[in-house]
Amino acid sequence: MLRQALHELRLATRGRGLYEFTDQVTTWISKNKFHAGLLTLHLRHTSASLLIQENADPDVRHDLERFFTRLVPDGDPLFVHTAEGDDDMPAHVRTALTAVNLSIPVDQGRLALGTWQGIYLWEQRRSPHSRVIALHFIGE
Amino acid sequence: MLRQALHELRLATRGRGLYEFTDQVTTWISKNKFHAGLLTLHLRHTSASLLIQENADPDVRHDLERFFTRLVPDGDPLFVHTAEGDDDMPAHVRTALTAVNLSIPVDQGRLALGTWQGIYLWEQRRSPHSRVIALHFIGE
Amino acid sequence: MLRQALHELRLATRGRGLYEFTDQVTTWISKNKFHAGLLTLHLRHTSASLLIQENADPDVRHDLERFFTRLVPDGDPLFVHTAEGDDDMPAHVRTALTAVNLSIPVDQGRLALGTWQGIYLWEQRRSPHSRVIALHFIGE
Repeated sequence: MLRQALHELRLATRGRGLYEFTDQVTTWISKNKFHAGLLTLHLRHTSASLLIQENADPDVRHDLERFFTRLVPDGDPLFVHTAEGDDDMPAHVRTALTAVNLSIPVDQGRLALGTWQGIYLWEQRRSPHSRVIALHFIGE
Repeated sequence: MLRQALHELRLATRGRGLYEFTDQVTTWISKNKFHAGLLTLHLRHTSASLLIQENADPDVRHDLERFFTRLVPDGDPLFVHTAEGDDDMPAHVRTALTAVNLSIPVDQGRLALGTWQGIYLWEQRRSPHSRVIALHFIGE
Repeated sequence: MLRQALHELRLATRGRGLYEFTDQVTTWISKNKFHAGLLTLHLRHTSASLLIQENADPDVRHDLERFFTRLVPDGDPLFVHTAEGDDDMPAHVRTALTAVNLSIPVDQGRLALGTWQGIYLWEQRRSPHSRVIALHFIGE
């Protein structure tokens, strides 16, 4: 019997960086006994992203951060939109280069993630923020 | 009772830039009285993108455009595929760096977008085009 | 009557490059007589991507590859995570810049792809790999 459910996660960030929240998604799935279906995550912000990346070696997150900092430097004189700080427009660009929604199948009660895949909130601003993620599940 | 629906939007662009069409999506949702579920948008082209970005200050769109123009310059001698114009291959690259599909939950009859989020078609070619977006809804 | 189905595709790559597998997805759809609904693909890896791009002129894929090689060079001294080879961290970055999941409506028994759109696995590592894609369909 197909059914659906909606939920909301709120994450507090401590400034720019990758925050894993796979466990909070997994908890929602097991608590509701979702067995098979489709999970969708949508981040309700324009200066932060959702990313699926390696959750083994922390150097991977460190290097991702370094690459994006070099590619989209804070304070770049190219940008006109600077009223909210010199990291605000870079945060919008970094968000455009990544994504704000993810879709992951659920199979036998588990997210169909690979062995090394974790789900991350990527805070793109330098200061702490409260971020909201809308979750949707449809299936059995 | 779960149900689904398909629809198609056609947008005329006036060349490179971001075109908001949140209202047209919202209209389809309210006309069909979709209350809760999942909305998917798929752009049927390889040289234009779908993007969720800030719909407040127009400078954000302007700066996004400037950044991508610098990152993927038209007429770059790196490119071999130039028969359709010197902005064609950059348009494919800009599309690969962004996305052609989006998935957004619908909750209490409204898209679960954040306060500042709008849905944009990003025309990546310099000349006007007619672009088609396939819409899918599943839910109640 | 709404129903859902899960499936898994396994693709062998011969190293970095774009591998089209639209046919394998289409075959699964027609074999199961899916008429209308939503197809989701999720790649279970952190150093390879899913991409919808032009399947006409092979130069487009060639130029995409050249652009990403220049943007994220192998052996970049910026990177700390190098134990698995000098193309490993660039593969993670290239994956973050693209995507690992896609959502495509199905209409009248066909994927709602545009005329020139093909579905590709983008192997981001230089050596051959076996890659797994989780498929989910919900609809009629």
